[in-house]
Amino acid sequence: MSVHEYTMLLLALGILLFAARALGELADRFGQPTVLGEIAAGIVLGPTVLGRIAPDTAAWLFSLNGPRGTAMDGLFLLAIVLFMLVAGLEVDLSTVWRQGKSAAFVGIAGTVAPFAIGFAVAWIAPGWLGYDEGTSRFIFAMFIATALSISALPVIAKTLMDLGLYYSDLGMVVISAAMFSDVVGWILFALILSLMDVEAVHSGGIGTTILLVLGFAAMMLTVVRWAIHRGLPWVQAHTSFPGGMLGLAFATALCCAAFTEWAGVHAIFGAFLAGVAIGDSPRFRNHTRTIIRQFVSSFFAPLFFASIGLKVDFLAHFDLPLMLIVIALACVSKILACGFAGTMAQLPRREAWAVAFALNARGAMEIILGLLALRYGVINERLFVALVVMALVTSVLSGISIPAVLKHAKRRKIEDFLSSKTYAGELRGATLQDAIRELSANVALAAGLESSALSGATLEREEIASTALGNGVAVPHARLADAKAFCVGAGISRTGIDFNAPDGKPAHVLFLLVSPQQDDGAQLDILADVADRFSDPAFYEKAAAAGSYTEFLAVLRTRGN
Amino acid sequence: MSVHEYTMLLLALGILLFAARALGELADRFGQPTVLGEIAAGIVLGPTVLGRIAPDTAAWLFSLNGPRGTAMDGLFLLAIVLFMLVAGLEVDLSTVWRQGKSAAFVGIAGTVAPFAIGFAVAWIAPGWLGYDEGTSRFIFAMFIATALSISALPVIAKTLMDLGLYYSDLGMVVISAAMFSDVVGWILFALILSLMDVEAVHSGGIGTTILLVLGFAAMMLTVVRWAIHRGLPWVQAHTSFPGGMLGLAFATALCCAAFTEWAGVHAIFGAFLAGVAIGDSPRFRNHTRTIIRQFVSSFFAPLFFASIGLKVDFLAHFDLPLMLIVIALACVSKILACGFAGTMAQLPRREAWAVAFALNARGAMEIILGLLALRYGVINERLFVALVVMALVTSVLSGISIPAVLKHAKRRKIEDFLSSKTYAGELRGATLQDAIRELSANVALAAGLESSALSGATLEREEIASTALGNGVAVPHARLADAKAFCVGAGISRTGIDFNAPDGKPAHVLFLLVSPQQDDGAQLDILADVADRFSDPAFYEKAAAAGSYTEFLAVLRTRGN
Repeated sequence: MSVHEYTMLLLALGILLFAARALGELADRFGQPTVLGEIAAGIVLGPTVLGRIAPDTAAWLFSLNGPRGTAMDGLFLLAIVLFMLVAGLEVDLSTVWRQGKSAAFVGIAGTVAPFAIGFAVAWIAPGWLGYDEGTSRFIFAMFIATALSISALPVIAKTLMDLGLYYSDLGMVVISAAMFSDVVGWILFALILSLMDVEAVHSGGIGTTILLVLGFAAMMLTVVRWAIHRGLPWVQAHTSFPGGMLGLAFATALCCAAFTEWAGVHAIFGAFLAGVAIGDSPRFRNHTRTIIRQFVSSFFAPLFFASIGLKVDFLAHFDLPLMLIVIALACVSKILACGFAGTMAQLPRREAWAVAFALNARGAMEIILGLLALRYGVINERLFVALVVMALVTSVLSGISIPAVLKHAKRRKIEDFLSSKTYAGELRGATLQDAIRELSANVALAAGLESSALSGATLEREEIASTALGNGVAVPHARLADAKAFCVGAGISRTGIDFNAPDGKPAHVLFLLVSPQQDDGAQLDILADVADRFSDPAFYEKAAAAGSYTEFLAVLRTRGN
Repeated sequence: MSVHEYTMLLLALGILLFAARALGELADRFGQPTVLGEIAAGIVLGPTVLGRIAPDTAAWLFSLNGPRGTAMDGLFLLAIVLFMLVAGLEVDLSTVWRQGKSAAFVGIAGTVAPFAIGFAVAWIAPGWLGYDEGTSRFIFAMFIATALSISALPVIAKTLMDLGLYYSDLGMVVISAAMFSDVVGWILFALILSLMDVEAVHSGGIGTTILLVLGFAAMMLTVVRWAIHRGLPWVQAHTSFPGGMLGLAFATALCCAAFTEWAGVHAIFGAFLAGVAIGDSPRFRNHTRTIIRQFVSSFFAPLFFASIGLKVDFLAHFDLPLMLIVIALACVSKILACGFAGTMAQLPRREAWAVAFALNARGAMEIILGLLALRYGVINERLFVALVVMALVTSVLSGISIPAVLKHAKRRKIEDFLSSKTYAGELRGATLQDAIRELSANVALAAGLESSALSGATLEREEIASTALGNGVAVPHARLADAKAFCVGAGISRTGIDFNAPDGKPAHVLFLLVSPQQDDGAQLDILADVADRFSDPAFYEKAAAAGSYTEFLAVLRTRGN
């Protein structure tokens, strides 16, 4: 590369990153997914806006030809590979297995029904969906089916976190169902690509590609997953934090990505499955996951999503009827399937529909899927633009509609359920088990439950996924058939207890929530209340320093009433 | 790029990253700089080893030609730009200004003397240093001079941290002097490059380049630095953590890098100065600095340093006599200059020589300097290899020799200087100022000092640079002419106090150290003792939970005696 090429490469990346981060932050400020802002940055700097206003500047700045185009191409590939690694790390298959029937039911129905509806519509009326003669109608229908059934786990998790619902039973159902449809969806899509006889490095043809993809997926989810689980303690003990795990995760993702690219499907499948295999181990610390996510989402992801806008002219390929059909089809198939499945799985009615709206978000995943389909010629640019808009609309809709669906007349507060009897004061235990037992003893006495049953159920829930909110707060909880009413216990730990928090901080303020089988949304209210109030570090510090129940109650009353 | 090119790019990066991180961790385990392992990984995978054993495999894996070579070239450029941003962020010019005369004296002498010696030797006997006829002898001599005078701030800081000396007065002298020689050295090198009439994008010739470089440096260190200082609170308050600051720092570095590349010197100067301008603001949090450093040093830096081994055959260009001359010249000029300057600045004799050995480390900076000189044809590959070896040897030497120089008959412990009178128990204050005042009151009473003088001097020292070790421990300290003997105070804060720690955690265990004008190394011993014992989180938690002086003392006696 010449000095001019180097200069322009750095300048283009600098401007792209700045715009993507700035608009991403802006979207975040308005409670919208970051990817919305990042794509908007690309649209503004690409052919859609800048290319129309000042075509010379746009061509000079973001020329994708020549050596610097190649360098950017390589960098964007790296970015998407690392983004998919992160997406895979968020998937915890053991959570899916350990969740109750309702999660499995919603997950299967929410994947199968949109798949079937999408396939049927695309097969019967492909013209409605912008089908181009020339590609196989079967592959096109399979793609539409997969595109409708996939969910966007990262966006969904973020929305639930923002709403304070991530750690609730409702949140766990949503997350498990999303993980299920993610893994199934991506493996399906890899099979579609292998059917296409796209250019592959090996020369075995379609049959070999399918075998390689299925064999690789099976290996990653069994042998490799087991080997990583066994090797993790050694790596975490003998390498620097977080550099050791970062290096290992990135190197593994790159090598797996190279394998799937070689096999004839895209590099991202390898990276995604590498993420699933690593992130699935209960020994993989939530804090490491957070650091890898921060790393990728503040540098690689903005560059990648902004680059989409550089490649496609969103105005020239804007097709309103197509867009409305895609959006309607996506929303109707996913929301109805999940909503009915949730109701049939005996979730409370409001919660079933909240789950459905949450799973409807397509976000970043849909966009990546569409981009690959575009690259391999499965869809045209009109449909790609429609898919991107659908992905963004469903994500925005999800954040708006969940609170609306769950809305209560009056939001209940922690202190409505806490009493001096259930306040355990200073906890003596130094481990998670001891702390939960101490809290359970108090609450069980006050609520007329058996202490060991309560602590057992709480520990079981904790095994599925950590209830640490971060910032020193944890909210272990359980649902017991014997419980007569919703009840809250609390305790303070001076030394701090390791709850495997996303920020790695020990928990000092602990709440124990006990729900009866049906709790009219009290758990959701209290979890949201804790998340909301304890987002203020000053409030947390005052609460953690409280010496008695009266002091603790006084602190609670200083905020959020 | 074709599918084959994508595959090989991902595979090459995956293998390179894995090898570099693995050998980097290995070097770290033996107390050596990570860069040593990273370069070794490149040497093993490059023409030096793999290229000799299996030339076909080496060519197949790491071919630097074709599109994937271009993509890797772009990625390595990005990596070095981000690495230099981090190097710049570590520089805090205000620390240099606020340090006493001894730091300035050592800094100037340790930069000027090696520069003069290097220039003289290279000018008089260029043949000894592998000078090739054809390049300008003046530019060659200027380069050798700069190469000898520069220090490796990141390596030096890491070595001092490992030895527990970073926060001592000795450490501050070393760090300030290294910052000074870094900034001066890089600006000098930029001027040398601009003298060379290298290919530039603008067409103004040498004069314009020099003006651009000096003007840019002046702007970055004044106006831009001020603007960033003013803008930081807004950015930190209104964007996500750490994504907002990461995005801003990276985007700024990329744009500044593009500018200096355009101006006709290398991109790294822009990135380095961007780092200095950002990192200089006292409002820039140490925690953000740590995150950016982790981000770069676990992904970009390993890839970049390993790539050096891919480009140069270290065996074919190995020239032992040249290497010995370069090492001898580097060590003699730097160590003697700094050692004598330190002695003249009235540092205790042992400390003066410890400073000299610390500043002798050349590490990563020398290698980057050499690589650019090689690229622009100032030096040949023999001299480059000699410089790389010199950089590594001086860095390793520095870690070994400092403890040897400082060695005492008996290492003193915290409890040798702590008494029930200077133990303040639970601190009531919630701010850094209040906590230091409380600690000072106790210590001043016991040591017969004026409390306000002690707290004033301690706060002044804290202004220069935070004394938080991280992990909840801080060691504020002061040197007072009135103090008769070295004295240690301690206190516990239940709520934690924000000391601007590198890991962002509030300090719960605080030690206040008071030194007389000459303290025979007691401060160094105690700082090393605190750093060593409190590196164990379990020990820290026990200490933080101590309820009385007796309990605190009992905890201290459980470890390190």
